Amino acid sequence: MATVSSPTETEQCIESLIAVFQRHAGRDGNNNKVSKAEFLIFMNTELGAFTKNQKDPGVLDRTMKKLDLSSDGQLDFQECLNLIGGLAITCCESFVKSASGQK
Amino acid sequence: MATVSSPTETEQCIESLIAVFQRHAGRDGNNNKVSKAEFLIFMNTELGAFTKNQKDPGVLDRTMKKLDLSSDGQLDFQECLNLIGGLAITCCESFVKSASGQK
Repeated sequence: MATVSSPTETEQCIESLIAVFQRHAGRDGNNNKVSKAEFLIFMNTELGAFTKNQKDPGVLDRTMKKLDLSSDGQLDFQECLNLIGGLAITCCESFVKSASGQK
Repeated sequence: MATVSSPTETEQCIESLIAVFQRHAGRDGNNNKVSKAEFLIFMNTELGAFTKNQKDPGVLDRTMKKLDLSSDGQLDFQECLNLIGGLAITCCESFVKSASGQK
């Protein structure tokens, strides 16, 4: 009999990234793209640690424009992943620097 | 008093992606890069659902070569993320197709 094994940590991440994107993108009924209003809610709820100390109110606006490679005023899943991937790389580099500084 | 709030789902993903990478990359003592042997273990343990039905033994070899943009025979965090991001995009597109097929 076929059994379904529980997802690995990486598979759980893939599931979560898709679920979070669709949850935010779906606020206006179209869950394939994140509108600007949905992007602002996503940033402030999911990535608040990165935005809360941001004094410049134009940063999120410029971030969205930079991510919007197709220039359609919305972000698809890949465009959102570029942001999360970029943050992950920055965090990873920061951990490595901090760990090597402790040696 | 400053409080530390629990991480959001997206922040947990970022943490997990870094932790999994460092766990696999660290098998040979250098946790900044994944060697070919480490990549094979990573693929078979973390992404076994994608590899277990693969009949062609050369696929993982070619996947690693394609991901290794710096051609140093190893994968850094960004190179590994490109794989996970690519899989996430494929899964997301597949969910969207499957959902629209049900309508």
